[in-house]
Amino acid sequence: MKTDNLLQQINFIKEIDKVKYIQRKTKLFNSDRNENDAEHSWHLAMMTIVLAEHSDVPVDILKVLKMVLIHDIVEIDAGDTFIYDTAKSHSNTDEERIAANRIFGLLPKEQADEFISIWEEFESGQTNEAKFAKTMDRLEPLLQNVSNNGGTWKEFDVPYDKVYDKKKVIKDGSAAIWDYAEKIINESVEKGILKKTSK
Amino acid sequence: MKTDNLLQQINFIKEIDKVKYIQRKTKLFNSDRNENDAEHSWHLAMMTIVLAEHSDVPVDILKVLKMVLIHDIVEIDAGDTFIYDTAKSHSNTDEERIAANRIFGLLPKEQADEFISIWEEFESGQTNEAKFAKTMDRLEPLLQNVSNNGGTWKEFDVPYDKVYDKKKVIKDGSAAIWDYAEKIINESVEKGILKKTSK
Repeated sequence: MKTDNLLQQINFIKEIDKVKYIQRKTKLFNSDRNENDAEHSWHLAMMTIVLAEHSDVPVDILKVLKMVLIHDIVEIDAGDTFIYDTAKSHSNTDEERIAANRIFGLLPKEQADEFISIWEEFESGQTNEAKFAKTMDRLEPLLQNVSNNGGTWKEFDVPYDKVYDKKKVIKDGSAAIWDYAEKIINESVEKGILKKTSK
Repeated sequence: MKTDNLLQQINFIKEIDKVKYIQRKTKLFNSDRNENDAEHSWHLAMMTIVLAEHSDVPVDILKVLKMVLIHDIVEIDAGDTFIYDTAKSHSNTDEERIAANRIFGLLPKEQADEFISIWEEFESGQTNEAKFAKTMDRLEPLLQNVSNNGGTWKEFDVPYDKVYDKKKVIKDGSAAIWDYAEKIINESVEKGILKKTSK
C-alpha cells in the first residue's frame, strides 16, 4: 500500500516540475527578469516563516506553508492570471477547479483530498490561515514593484485606487504588515512610480 | 519593537531574492534548463509534504520544511558546490558559515539564531529531521538525472559507485524511499545512462 502510494507521489513530484515554467507578470527584485511560480511560492514560504509573528491571530504555520507552496500548482493547466486583468477573474475559475482535480488527483486519494481542500481554503480566503497566506501573496509583488520603480503598475498602467483595492486584503491577515504596506503604497505615489488616476 | 523587527525582516526578504539567480548543475525534469536554488528549495518543500509518511520515524514536518527552504540561502555568498566536486567539500565550509552569519544576521537576533541553528542542524545531518531533509535533497536530483538520460552523471563523467555513495544517505531518512532510489540507480546502469566505472 505504502509502495503504491510512493509511485503515485513520485509521479506527482515529476508533474509539478512544470510550475517552474509558469511566468508571472511581476519581475524579480531590482530586475527585468520575470519571476516564475516556483520561485514565487518559495519566497512566500520564506516570508511565512519570517513574518508569522505579525499575524493578528495565532495561525497554524504548517497549514499556511502548505497553502503558499501549492497555491499556484493549478496554473500548470489553467495558466497565470494577472491580478489587475479586468477581463478574467483571478480566483476560483472553473478551469482552476478542473486543474486541481487533475493534478492533485495524481496523489493517493486521501492526500489528493487534503490538497484540494487546502487549495480551496486558500482560494476562499475565509480562515485565519488563508488570510495570512493571502497577506503574503499580496505583499511580495508590492515589494517587487516598489523595487522596480513601479514595475507592473507602470507597465500595465495600473493606478493607485486599483492597487489599493487589491492590496487592502493584507489587512485581513496582519494590521502591522498593512501599516507598512499602506505606507509604501502612499510613498510610491509621492515618488511618482504609482499614479493617482488612470490615463 | 515589532515594527523594528518588521523592517529587518523585509530587508532579509529582499536579500534572499538572490537565491533565484544561483544556478545548480542539475537540470529540470526532461529538460536542458538548469535549475536554480529557489526552484530546487520549493520542490524539496513539496516533496517533504508529499513524502512525509515514508519517514522511518515520525518527524516534525514544520522543522524539515524550514530546513529545506533555507538550506541553500548561504550560497548567495558561498556559491553552489557540485556534489561530485572532488576538490571542494560540499558541506560546512568556513565560507558557508560566514555567509550564514551575514545573511541570517539581517534578521532580528532571536530569529537569526534560530535560522543559523536550523541550518547547522541540517548540515550536521544527525537529527531525524535533518536525515529526512537530506533524503529529499538527494532524491530530487536523482529523479532529474534519470529523466534526463543520465544528466549530470553523463555530463561530468560520474560513475555508479560515486552516485551510490552520495545517494545512500537517503536510507538514513527512509527505508522505503531508499528501496525505490536503489532500484532506479540500478536500472540506470542497466539502461546505460549510468556507467559502472570511470573512464
